[in-house]
This record gives sequence, structure tokens and C-alpha cells, in this order.
Amino acid sequence: MITVLAGGVGAARFLQGLLAVHRPSDITIVSNVGDDAEFFGLYVSPDIDIVLYHLSGLADEERGFGLKGDTFNVLGSIGRYGYDTWFQLGDGDLATCITRTDLLRRGRTLAEVTSELASALLIPATITPSTNDRLRTKIRTDDGVLDFQEYFVRRRTEGHAWEVTYEGAEDAVPAPGVIEAIGESEMVLLTPSNPIVSVGPILAVPGIREALRETDARIGAVSPIVGGKTLKGPADRMLRDQGLAASATTIASLYQDFLDVLVIDTVDAALVPEIEALGVQAVVTDTIMASMEKKSALARTVLAALGPK
Amino acid sequence: MITVLAGGVGAARFLQGLLAVHRPSDITIVSNVGDDAEFFGLYVSPDIDIVLYHLSGLADEERGFGLKGDTFNVLGSIGRYGYDTWFQLGDGDLATCITRTDLLRRGRTLAEVTSELASALLIPATITPSTNDRLRTKIRTDDGVLDFQEYFVRRRTEGHAWEVTYEGAEDAVPAPGVIEAIGESEMVLLTPSNPIVSVGPILAVPGIREALRETDARIGAVSPIVGGKTLKGPADRMLRDQGLAASATTIASLYQDFLDVLVIDTVDAALVPEIEALGVQAVVTDTIMASMEKKSALARTVLAALGPK
Repeated sequence: MITVLAGGVGAARFLQGLLAVHRPSDITIVSNVGDDAEFFGLYVSPDIDIVLYHLSGLADEERGFGLKGDTFNVLGSIGRYGYDTWFQLGDGDLATCITRTDLLRRGRTLAEVTSELASALLIPATITPSTNDRLRTKIRTDDGVLDFQEYFVRRRTEGHAWEVTYEGAEDAVPAPGVIEAIGESEMVLLTPSNPIVSVGPILAVPGIREALRETDARIGAVSPIVGGKTLKGPADRMLRDQGLAASATTIASLYQDFLDVLVIDTVDAALVPEIEALGVQAVVTDTIMASMEKKSALARTVLAALGPK
Repeated sequence: MITVLAGGVGAARFLQGLLAVHRPSDITIVSNVGDDAEFFGLYVSPDIDIVLYHLSGLADEERGFGLKGDTFNVLGSIGRYGYDTWFQLGDGDLATCITRTDLLRRGRTLAEVTSELASALLIPATITPSTNDRLRTKIRTDDGVLDFQEYFVRRRTEGHAWEVTYEGAEDAVPAPGVIEAIGESEMVLLTPSNPIVSVGPILAVPGIREALRETDARIGAVSPIVGGKTLKGPADRMLRDQGLAASATTIASLYQDFLDVLVIDTVDAALVPEIEALGVQAVVTDTIMASMEKKSALARTVLAALGPK
């Protein structure tokens, strides 16, 4: 069994490769929920949905969010009623949000809803939120504390992110099965995701980081930082905003307490000594997931690096 | 001031004429809510929306419901998640329902929400539900008691309607201003609507029928039955199912306790004596609203019939 901690588009792309090269029914995907939000009274779970859409083949992979060929007719009409419509929810995407909101209001947990959506989309892997409780990533900027989507989408991550907090994290409980999955897996993988706003909120749920430290599973991560930059998103800038270097070495140091292997890109091969000085094995490969073949190759490399020697 | 009791497409079409020939800001429209329903967790108010859409010029007048040129992309996607999609909610229509549901969940009353929607659509008349409370029209058929939309839309009104009841009516309170509007108006109009499932649920709200009996306003109705038939909808068949004749005379008898004038179609001119025998003045005119000119002409005739002699 493999457990994957996932958040954002890097996770979705990596998982496409992983599910192609490993039995999907043996994979448990634990998704970030820190960027969940409500718009027009509808519950939006962007990190869960991006995985759902990528693994069902419905994703708009070029845009990096939402559904391929989606239309925006509801959004066009809803502005008439005075709503802000900067969060681009397409009509198919709204169908997911309407369903999630309806099921939650009927008393289902977020984990149950996620499972039902994955099942409806014929996804053979298990997908679960890190927690069923309310946990929200907040960004302190020069203009005050912003909701994640306000910072990420509306402001396009402009400005200095002074502090990132995970509201509600202290009281959050891991979703059913998450701790067990980490404990019983042979491998735990961290996708190439933003360590602060994608993986960070998962690790902030009490018990998850401890489970990672204690599990017998081999734990690997793929660095989202390549040559000092992120391919997508603000991870590099956010690391610097926190006074950290935007480098694969920083990724190793953030997960040092539980990480066995960090997979880094060939352009970062020179970092191997400083990463291994942290007690983390460094594996060098091409991490740019430019095609389905490359996604699968990356997944194979990660599995090989963590497998029995 | 004029108060109009309204329900369904006949109401919406009549109101287009009325608002063209009378100062809209002096008109209060009291809408049926008996056919309100929830689909996918969204609150749908078909009789309010058909009026909103007709009076804002957005209605699909040919189809008789929804918005002109609307698309059905959300509905197409939502079926994937296991929902029945026989209730045809277009994307623009869903934007209205999403807004209404959100505002209701934030604690607004249905009357407040309706007023906000009307205002967003720049409608200068006052539109209010008959009640803010839950009131649902139910139809007893050979297959048991059905929700109104189940009978009306899903089954296309097939089968015998043994009994029509208004669930929740006994405990419903008229929406703020409804009783006052009836009491203070110079005229009260009943649109050419189904007496059983459009006007009936309004009259079932305790206090409304009494206010109609007591008001000094002159009260007029337009018969929805023309030559023993309805132009649209099942009013004729439903009347017969209740053991009543499908005729303008039946309409007069159902409202006999408060009605001053019944406007009937020229094809029904022979019914004048039996209608007037009920103590209701009958006015004969062309009631077929085939064009905007005919809608306005009908409204003018109704106003003239109720105005000072």
C-alpha cells in the first residue's frame, strides 16, 4: 500500500503517473483542504477536485484547474446578483460544488463526499481529505490577513506573504483512516507541491506529522523547487518570504524529521551533498512532467528509490 | 395601488401587460409558493422566477419557463453524480437558485430574497411570496401523494389528481405587507392562473382569503378557462378531477365569496347570466394574450372593469 500526501496541480500531475505504474486500488491519496472555500454558498475543495479531475481524465491540464472544455454560464449570470466572480468556477466545476454542498448539508462528512465523488468519476484509488474538520490556510500580507483564495486567485499571489497560518488546525482531527494508512503503508509519498500552502496544512493536522515520524514506511518526496524556481505557483517566492532559500535543500530540511528520500531534478544535482548532510537520501532524475511518459517515468523512479534495496 | 395574486405563466404574461399600462411602482405582486421545491440542495421558486424573468425581459416566453437562450451545462454534469435531472434548470436559472439558496441560508426571508432578486433585475414593481413559511402543494394520485413538481414536471400531470392539499398552509403566516396591500389597494387582481395549484395555495394562507372578503378594494379575476379548456397547463383536467366543470362559471364560484368582476373570453359570452347569478359581474373580452398589444389590452379592460363606474 502507498499513501500520498497531495495538494495542488503538481500533485494531480504526479498522481496521473503513479496510478499508471502502480495498482490504483492500493493507493490512498490524502488531500490538502487548507484552500477550501465557500463561494455563493457553495463549498469548493480545489485540491481535491484537481485530483478528481486529473485522475478521471476530465481536467483542463493546460489551464491547471477545472474541467476541460468547461463553460462559465452560471458565473456570467451570477454576477448580475451582486456576487464577486473572480473565482473562476465553470459550470461542470459548479456541478461538483453543488453536489458536495448538498451532500455535506445532508450530514455527510467531507471524506464521505469525496469518496462518493471519486466513485462517481470511476477513480479506483482512495481519495480522502486530511481532515473532515474546518482548516483554512490564511496569508498575512501588507493588507492584512487574507483567505488563501483571496491571496492566490484574486491577488495572483502579489505582495509579501509575511506569515502563513492554518486556522482551525489545532482542533482538527485526521480523517478516518489517514493515520492508519500512513502507519500501514510500505511507502508514503509527498507530491511535488508547495511545502507551505499545499503540504504544510496536511502536516498541521495533529497526529499526521507524528505518524510520519513513527511509521515503518519509507517516505519520499519530489522537490517542487527546480533550479531555485517553481514550475507553477508561488512556492519559491513564499519560501523566500519566510526567509528560506528557494531550493531543494530547503524542501529536505522542512521534512527532515521524517523524510528518507528526496527526488530532485538533474539541474539540482550539485545539491546532493548538502541534502544528504541533512540525513536525507537524494535521488537525481528528470522531474519535469511534460508528458504522460515523463509522469510515469518520474513515478517509477520514486517507487524504485523507496523500494527494497 | 393594485395588488395582484399571481401564479404560473398566465400570471407572468398578464403582468407584462399590466406593468405596461399602469405605474409599476404602485403594483404589489403576491406570488404562489406552493410549487417551490429543492433540487440538488438548491431552493427553486418557479412561480416567483417566471414573474421575475418575464418582467425583466429575460424569460423564454415560448417555452414558458426559464431564461431565453439559457444553456443546461450544469445539469448535464450533475447527472454524473447520481442526481435526477428531469427538472430542467438552466445555467442562468441555477444562478438565481444558487443566489436564493445562499441568501436564505444567511438568514434572509424568502420575501427579502425575492425583493433583492427583483431589484437586481431592475423590476420596479413589488414582488413578494404569499408567505415566508414552508407551504407545499401536494397531489394525491393513484401512485400516492406526489410533490407538485413530481406531478407537474416529471409526470407531465398524467393520471387522476384525486386531491390537492397545501402542506404547511395551516401554520403559514402571510408575508409582511401582504394583508396590508390587500386592505389598502383600490383593486386586487387574480391573474388567469390555475385556481387549484396557483391561486389556491395563496388563498390557503390563513388571513389572505379573509382580507379579500373584507377589503374595500374592487376585486377582479381573469378566467384561465376559455371555452372549457386551459390554454396551458392542466387546470381544466384538475377541475374535472375534483368533480367540477371546467368552465369560467366554476372560476366565479370558487372566488364567489370575494370576487366582484370576472373577465371571461368572448367564446364564453353565453356564460354571463350564470356567472352573474353568482353575484359576480362578468365582463367579456378577448383574453388570449397572443402579443404584447393583446396583453396590454386585456390589462386595460380589467382596470376599466374594476375602476370607478
